[in-house]
Amino acid sequence: MLGLMQHQPLLISSLIEFAERHHGEGEIVSRRVEGDIHRYTYKELGLRSRKLAQALSAQGLAQGERVATLAWNGYRHLELYYGVSGSGCILHTLNPRLHPEQIAWIINHASDAVMCFDMSFLPIIKAIHTQCPTVKLYVALCDADKLPADSGIPNLVSYEAWMGGRTGVYTWPAFDENLASSMCYTSGTTGNPKAALYSHRSTVLHALAGSLPDALNMSARESVLPVVPMFHVNAWGLPYAAAMTGAKLVFPGPAMDGKSVYELIESEKVSFAAGVPTVWQMLLGHMQANTLRFSTLKRTVIGGSACPPAMITAFNDIYGVEVLHAWGMTEMSPLGTVCTLKNKHLAMSPEEKMKVRLKQGRGIFGVDMKIVNGMGDELPWDGNSAGDLLVKGHWILSEYFQGEGGGLLADGWFPTGDVATIDADGYMQITDRSKDVIKSGGEWISSIDIENIAMAHPAVAMAACIGMKHPKWDERPIVAVLKKPGMEVTREDLLAFYEGKTAKWQIPDDVVFVDAIPLGGTGKMQKSKLRAELADYVLPDLR
Amino acid sequence: MLGLMQHQPLLISSLIEFAERHHGEGEIVSRRVEGDIHRYTYKELGLRSRKLAQALSAQGLAQGERVATLAWNGYRHLELYYGVSGSGCILHTLNPRLHPEQIAWIINHASDAVMCFDMSFLPIIKAIHTQCPTVKLYVALCDADKLPADSGIPNLVSYEAWMGGRTGVYTWPAFDENLASSMCYTSGTTGNPKAALYSHRSTVLHALAGSLPDALNMSARESVLPVVPMFHVNAWGLPYAAAMTGAKLVFPGPAMDGKSVYELIESEKVSFAAGVPTVWQMLLGHMQANTLRFSTLKRTVIGGSACPPAMITAFNDIYGVEVLHAWGMTEMSPLGTVCTLKNKHLAMSPEEKMKVRLKQGRGIFGVDMKIVNGMGDELPWDGNSAGDLLVKGHWILSEYFQGEGGGLLADGWFPTGDVATIDADGYMQITDRSKDVIKSGGEWISSIDIENIAMAHPAVAMAACIGMKHPKWDERPIVAVLKKPGMEVTREDLLAFYEGKTAKWQIPDDVVFVDAIPLGGTGKMQKSKLRAELADYVLPDLR
Repeated sequence: MLGLMQHQPLLISSLIEFAERHHGEGEIVSRRVEGDIHRYTYKELGLRSRKLAQALSAQGLAQGERVATLAWNGYRHLELYYGVSGSGCILHTLNPRLHPEQIAWIINHASDAVMCFDMSFLPIIKAIHTQCPTVKLYVALCDADKLPADSGIPNLVSYEAWMGGRTGVYTWPAFDENLASSMCYTSGTTGNPKAALYSHRSTVLHALAGSLPDALNMSARESVLPVVPMFHVNAWGLPYAAAMTGAKLVFPGPAMDGKSVYELIESEKVSFAAGVPTVWQMLLGHMQANTLRFSTLKRTVIGGSACPPAMITAFNDIYGVEVLHAWGMTEMSPLGTVCTLKNKHLAMSPEEKMKVRLKQGRGIFGVDMKIVNGMGDELPWDGNSAGDLLVKGHWILSEYFQGEGGGLLADGWFPTGDVATIDADGYMQITDRSKDVIKSGGEWISSIDIENIAMAHPAVAMAACIGMKHPKWDERPIVAVLKKPGMEVTREDLLAFYEGKTAKWQIPDDVVFVDAIPLGGTGKMQKSKLRAELADYVLPDLR
Repeated sequence: MLGLMQHQPLLISSLIEFAERHHGEGEIVSRRVEGDIHRYTYKELGLRSRKLAQALSAQGLAQGERVATLAWNGYRHLELYYGVSGSGCILHTLNPRLHPEQIAWIINHASDAVMCFDMSFLPIIKAIHTQCPTVKLYVALCDADKLPADSGIPNLVSYEAWMGGRTGVYTWPAFDENLASSMCYTSGTTGNPKAALYSHRSTVLHALAGSLPDALNMSARESVLPVVPMFHVNAWGLPYAAAMTGAKLVFPGPAMDGKSVYELIESEKVSFAAGVPTVWQMLLGHMQANTLRFSTLKRTVIGGSACPPAMITAFNDIYGVEVLHAWGMTEMSPLGTVCTLKNKHLAMSPEEKMKVRLKQGRGIFGVDMKIVNGMGDELPWDGNSAGDLLVKGHWILSEYFQGEGGGLLADGWFPTGDVATIDADGYMQITDRSKDVIKSGGEWISSIDIENIAMAHPAVAMAACIGMKHPKWDERPIVAVLKKPGMEVTREDLLAFYEGKTAKWQIPDDVVFVDAIPLGGTGKMQKSKLRAELADYVLPDLR
């Protein structure tokens, strides 16, 4: 027997329709590429998104065609989020930090029909447009009078000229909520990038669960600064969650330095900001150098990589800002866990709370997790047993775009490639990447633990721990170290530094000093490259 | 092109599965019918819900069959919420405050196959069981040794004996999320009661949106007391939202007096309570009489009927408890609006905030509203234009069970039967019931406004304003008044009391003193009965 409830598809257009009607005067403030501050409301966002949808329709774009963006966080990018997906096309956000050749490869793989870009990225477009035959139209996200006359790019229009003349009289189409809404390529540390293809249903459910008090806690009382980029995994879904809840949105544009971010937080009374640790490091540096305080900032969610404890303490103790760890992946839309406390933790001491806060957090409703050993058997949630982390849920991918990478689910579970522990309260902690964990004598050594100890040494700027083949132990760890400029440390000093900080058998067999540690487009260490660079290396006891 | 996300149905069983896994140690505390306090965890709730599902299966119940409950708020009722719906049967919660004949009528209309009841309601079952041929099994929600030997009810078992022996080894079935999960009959002030039939999808979406910070703000840090009954519209969805978020649940059982509720709030460190104004009136009375304070209560959501401003002020100013108005209907699962403030209100004075707080609130994502005039044209959101309120959304009914009442949607919108205004910020305020509003000379007079003025008179206990047919004005208002015991007021006094409090043309034409004003099963005034009682009444200027 069917229920007798109204059935409406869960569509991205329903978010902007709701915001326009119920939060019409809610503010959206953007620092533009031009440097000035632009401000308007959800009502205007709705109108301009419909104009954009009309422009796409006039362009002859059919449902499911890809519209690419190379853009900072700002109101025009937000209009693309709603106008493109709402009209039935697929929003394809591209990471401008990738190498132009890789960007061209991705555009061709996705068969993008339209490319919309901030003027910051004109040099990339100039470099690659001849290699992108599927792109029928290039749209520069600027006013008509800012369009360069001599770009050499055929089919180039300004965004404002292209969509400005439309009426905005447009009804968002209704369609199957399982249709694709947007896509994002992974950074692809091994092999070619692969794309996650999000659906309208997954995006709306992600926004709902992601707005819960135990996740990002989004409400009409918040002023939200997404420093996390809209070009990567939809800025953690904040552009959708904000419209769903009527939160004020504040976009930093390209200015992510400490001074610019601080000024925006203060002038727009930001209560909640989200970003990766490196941006917050710049912000803290600026504040400490200028003895500044926050007037309104209350919370920050930090993800992308683990947040150093010192940063959590600084935000909390010095500035009174709550820091929440979050963890997710491109393949997870991205939210998996957020580290909010439970009722039972409230009475704990600050030290005990900090132990909880250092974990990546607990699953939000809609995501399930499990850890398994090498045989695929589920491991207990005891906070100690480390195993391969698998996830399942409404906004977790089932396969990559065009089947790249093959059938990857294990009995319905997506293998994250991370190694983690989960404690009895459901708090997950990443201990390593599956491919980086060192298997020595039947036990696992966390490369991250070994790196963290090295990086606590005052002379070490960066450290990368990798496993080297060993006939007896299977693998043994060594650590590659980049010294701080002008600082010195010897191999023997550093190995001695490990004493007492970890089990004896986990201490690396060797230290290799390097001039650079290879980093990928998103700032992550590329250990595969490091391994290749050390192809001729031989462990001390095998020499 | 379809998205490539995992597809899982939105099922009620996914809520309890999540809670068991991620909030296994979360507490559920119940004051039992027996008077003692029972406590266990989500893990035990999950286990016992599965045992219950096994018992239903052993009973031969097929998907879609109805299992009725006549029960207070408590852990066994909660197990029925999950075990019945999770197994694919339909949970039918019955209101024990209805007349036994009406309960029997509803059981037959719903064709209930099983009836589960708290021992408080044994007299009702004794009175009606011979009239309910569809009921194959009666389950008393008690231990085996508490079952009366001589009840005279065939097929009577105790709940604990019935489900206690099962193993709990049971996998929740997967099925279409649009299947019916539960049902609730309206109080039916006119005609026979009609039922809303909720689906798994509507229930889970309602729990998600209802848990948002701008709705009920549910998290794992809350201790939640639903005083609002589980026998009516699923206790506003709190049993589902609590499992979704891991909130501690505290159930009052049958003891809703001020003393019992206060003691439970204090002993279980309740942070959030939800109920109707009459319960809070009893609680405040008890606290004032005993000069008590709250240690942990921070928020209360009040719905069911408008909350008197004095109560909001008392909670806020004296006890530091935030009062949120909410509005909904059985046909809406029930949440429609919650009166949480927006960013723009935060800097307002307490008086200005109070003006906002007196409204029923703004729509949560998933619900849209509009107000229309007699021609069906949409009226502006200006806070003044009053019109018939229509709603649309994921958890709003499309038709009643078995098509009762016919096709009732107007172009996809459900007519609520309320008259309301909506202001520019989306805050809705009910001004009257559509059938009670008085249409006089082309203008509408709110019967509620007229009643509120009368009830501000010290001698008036209750007042009901109804419209009387008039050849020139169409209708003219009169007010029926029940005087407080031992107090006096004349017709002329009361009409003079209206001067300056409302427009002259809105002052009632007459005052009729009555010995009683008819009330329905949920405590609402039954104006249709009053109209019938005053069938022979003639307006003064027509005599």
